Amino acid sequence: MRILVTNDDGILAPGIEALYRAVADLGEVEVVAPETPQSAVGHAITVRTPMLVHRVHVNKTFHGWSVDGRPADCVKLAIVELLDHKPDFVLSGINHGVNTGVNVLYSGTVAGAAEGCFFGIPSIAFSLELSDELDFERAGAIARRIFLHYVENKPPAGTCLNVNIPALDAGWPLGIRCTPQGLTVMEDAYRSEDAEDGRKLYWLDGRLPDGNRYPDTDLHAIRQRYVAITPLRFELTDRGMLKQVEQWGWPDGFEDSPLPPPPGQDR
Amino acid sequence: MRILVTNDDGILAPGIEALYRAVADLGEVEVVAPETPQSAVGHAITVRTPMLVHRVHVNKTFHGWSVDGRPADCVKLAIVELLDHKPDFVLSGINHGVNTGVNVLYSGTVAGAAEGCFFGIPSIAFSLELSDELDFERAGAIARRIFLHYVENKPPAGTCLNVNIPALDAGWPLGIRCTPQGLTVMEDAYRSEDAEDGRKLYWLDGRLPDGNRYPDTDLHAIRQRYVAITPLRFELTDRGMLKQVEQWGWPDGFEDSPLPPPPGQDR
Repeated sequence: MRILVTNDDGILAPGIEALYRAVADLGEVEVVAPETPQSAVGHAITVRTPMLVHRVHVNKTFHGWSVDGRPADCVKLAIVELLDHKPDFVLSGINHGVNTGVNVLYSGTVAGAAEGCFFGIPSIAFSLELSDELDFERAGAIARRIFLHYVENKPPAGTCLNVNIPALDAGWPLGIRCTPQGLTVMEDAYRSEDAEDGRKLYWLDGRLPDGNRYPDTDLHAIRQRYVAITPLRFELTDRGMLKQVEQWGWPDGFEDSPLPPPPGQDR
Repeated sequence: MRILVTNDDGILAPGIEALYRAVADLGEVEVVAPETPQSAVGHAITVRTPMLVHRVHVNKTFHGWSVDGRPADCVKLAIVELLDHKPDFVLSGINHGVNTGVNVLYSGTVAGAAEGCFFGIPSIAFSLELSDELDFERAGAIARRIFLHYVENKPPAGTCLNVNIPALDAGWPLGIRCTPQGLTVMEDAYRSEDAEDGRKLYWLDGRLPDGNRYPDTDLHAIRQRYVAITPLRFELTDRGMLKQVEQWGWPDGFEDSPLPPPPGQDR
């Protein structure tokens, strides 16, 4: 089988090396990953500038393409341009930090896997909870086992799993929980400082909320030391709300729409 | 009422000025928007660097905060830090080009509205189809009418509408269609060129597919010259697949997981 590996922490990150090693003997493995860290770039793609691409050899472990773009660019470019054959699977990660709750939307790791799904390719995003010592070796072993199980179950075209692995400092995870994505938002705060030119600088300083408040979610499973597996879809229509909004008695046309008034005086 | 206006084309773009003007007389309107164009940044946020923020006055039309970040940063920063009061509504746009199908995922405009939803604030993303002459004046009139109708219908907390307006060259839209998001993917291609240092440059050269192939979607409505309205949600769990994946007989634990073998010789 043909496997495409990408990530969002960059081609030199330890997580992608672990993921490569986890599947290297299972088929033809190609690595196409961002040249530099791309945390929290979400599903960004590069549309205004060209991307510089070259072949690299990383830590004597793997050859791959380094792309000065985003994770979604890497997968798009790999499939449309760089690879001789369409991959059978896209694997993204192993991310440095979990991607649960609304972080699924901010995550470049998830976007890499999602982009595979857009091409109909079954994909998995792997992320490892932050801790004092990130054990990518064991995380890789877990990713391998989950991937093999995924392949065995013949996932339909475009199936995307979001897999979060709890911190491994206290030993192996207790097991696996298949859970919905939580809707926990980050608890955001900003630090600020005056810039020299009189402008102001802001640093985001967000943190994950306590998972125990949200049972039966990805974050809760992680907090209980389980691997959380969440199948994702990328059709975002809110079907319930669609039915309501249809009943809102919208205008038939706009021909009688008044143009907005000119702006009032400055506030 | 308090309205926060943002966009992804940057605070100097004509679309945000039109959106400001469309709602300026309806309440207290604050503008917090990216300093530079942020097309296709998706739900990226700025986590590694500080953001420079300052107060600007644009085209003698509005005062606002210019943020050297992404649309989602602008909304987060506005709500957590910059504004004295939490807004009642977040409006994002008017984007230069439609955000239909999977472009909803790539869109910074949609991410700006989505971020409002994460804070429980009803939000709308507005986008205008590309054409020879982008008529933001009339697009603003349409946005105003849709916003007023939205407010009248008292949308529940966190309701997010994705509104796409067809090109206005041929006159006003024929009406409104409430449709699901399509799953049309871009038809991607790349142009490439050799860089001077021997590396290679790639430019993305994607185009929207023909909407008529996908009836009852946002893109199809646009192609028929209707305004497309799609309520969005940001819990991406694929519930059908979750039920299946739960039945896959996952391993109980990982304690007997073999570590991945060391990498073979270089390919």
